[in-house]
Amino acid sequence: MSNQLLVVGTVAFDAIETPFGKTDKILGGAATFIGLAASQFKRIETGIVSVIGEDFPEDYIQLLKDRKMNLEGLEQVKGGKTFFWSGKYHNDMNSRDTLDTQLNVLADFQPVVPERFKNAEIVMLGNLHPGVQLSVIEQVANPKLIVLDTMNFWMDTTLELLKKVIAKVDVITINDEEARQLSGEYSLVKAARVIRDMGPDYVVIKKGEHGALLFHKEEMFFAPALPLEEVFDPTGAGDTFAGGFSGYLAQTGDISFKNMKNAIIHGSNLASFCVEKFGTERMLQLNQDEVNERLKHFKALTQFEINLAK
Amino acid sequence: MSNQLLVVGTVAFDAIETPFGKTDKILGGAATFIGLAASQFKRIETGIVSVIGEDFPEDYIQLLKDRKMNLEGLEQVKGGKTFFWSGKYHNDMNSRDTLDTQLNVLADFQPVVPERFKNAEIVMLGNLHPGVQLSVIEQVANPKLIVLDTMNFWMDTTLELLKKVIAKVDVITINDEEARQLSGEYSLVKAARVIRDMGPDYVVIKKGEHGALLFHKEEMFFAPALPLEEVFDPTGAGDTFAGGFSGYLAQTGDISFKNMKNAIIHGSNLASFCVEKFGTERMLQLNQDEVNERLKHFKALTQFEINLAK
Repeated sequence: MSNQLLVVGTVAFDAIETPFGKTDKILGGAATFIGLAASQFKRIETGIVSVIGEDFPEDYIQLLKDRKMNLEGLEQVKGGKTFFWSGKYHNDMNSRDTLDTQLNVLADFQPVVPERFKNAEIVMLGNLHPGVQLSVIEQVANPKLIVLDTMNFWMDTTLELLKKVIAKVDVITINDEEARQLSGEYSLVKAARVIRDMGPDYVVIKKGEHGALLFHKEEMFFAPALPLEEVFDPTGAGDTFAGGFSGYLAQTGDISFKNMKNAIIHGSNLASFCVEKFGTERMLQLNQDEVNERLKHFKALTQFEINLAK
Repeated sequence: MSNQLLVVGTVAFDAIETPFGKTDKILGGAATFIGLAASQFKRIETGIVSVIGEDFPEDYIQLLKDRKMNLEGLEQVKGGKTFFWSGKYHNDMNSRDTLDTQLNVLADFQPVVPERFKNAEIVMLGNLHPGVQLSVIEQVANPKLIVLDTMNFWMDTTLELLKKVIAKVDVITINDEEARQLSGEYSLVKAARVIRDMGPDYVVIKKGEHGALLFHKEEMFFAPALPLEEVFDPTGAGDTFAGGFSGYLAQTGDISFKNMKNAIIHGSNLASFCVEKFGTERMLQLNQDEVNERLKHFKALTQFEINLAK
């Protein structure tokens, strides 16, 4: 039996504007990007827990099924409308404005973890309301690892509930500004220590184009982002990172710090593809050879043989 | 005979203000920081070409001599005053305001490379007027490698002369914003390509707390900055990086791309010490064991064993 990865997160419509162009409503959502990234690992079974409206196209559902995602936990609400997000990126691609958010069916979402996935080894809580994340944690039986992705929006609006979730997870992934906000510390080394005291044994701080840091006890690991000629659309990069990270851990079944380094590299590698085209476009085309080829670039980018000074 | 490193740059007084405190006039200058970093490599001879005023304390001179720097090329101007810079760092430590700059003896400086160093293998042109850098290039006979450090001030005020210098060097080190300004490209990958077309075979882009990138032909290497609990004073970090980089290359006599990766790591490692105290304070206390210990941290921070996805 293959290792199981349980994913909760949004399945959504996105409308995106970048300096390179704009899209109509396209497929998006945290669970979508996480699932697509995880689908690169062929020996795992990924279950998606999410909610969509009646307006969600059958084509999109098929597209997820084609990538071997189990959709038993994907609720479709009759007469409901799918969650919609619209945003515009600034010229530097590091910041964006949210133009529109329509919660729609997400507003009353009560997640139901399918029987089949209650014993999943790895649980990936994608970014959405901490109440939904907590409900999923309460439905699963003793997973090897729970990974939480969240963002500043929940720190601003529902911090106490978010802290309850944080207390129950093994790994948290947030960006640098969010780590500073959550901890009240500017230094990321200090921030990670404060956040580890909130519960998670592992803290991953995502720095976008500047890479990602993994903290565990007194150990640190750093993975750069691959320097790219062009970042076309950053949407979903963080989710793709989370999907690569959790997918690799599920595939290998090894949650040691040493293997988590590799998981960080796999996540960074997959995220580097995600930003090359609009939305999910690049991830939908991605093949194994391209992934492996770029992993070698990552290795060449960072590996060295140091001789100590004498 | 030991390998020779020839350094040109300022030897100066700095007055620094950071969120942690402020200093009176203390020892500073690009050549000072470069020389102190290079002094960690025991098998090289470092020659300093610079200028100071009559006000420069004998103690400071002795301090450089104690670290085996050859000061034949350090001109002391009778009745002159030493170059003075004063700056204040903002709370994030990533930006600063210059409060005062007094060129003093630097205004009319005509560098003279001592006979002994005309055949130096490695020439390190620290940040100062491109005219001075060019004069040094014209006085040396066929070095193995010329490394140039410069900054946006010279791009703003004397770009054409700076470009003449850039055309004659093998390696240029600048920060990310300066690389963008010099190249007109936002993507650092594209920026490095444009700058390589200006002359240097190697482009090093310094990203401060986000590390450094080395570009050569189609190859890239990335070294993170060591994540620190606290950055106390960033003054001299870039010069220290340059001194570690060029000093390691002089020590090993190996200017291959492979060895340049190690040089980048040594430079980053030494810079991580520099910022821990005001001015040169930390570099003056630094010993070999501390340096080697932290090099191991660098290795642990970045090295991984990747398995390709299947």
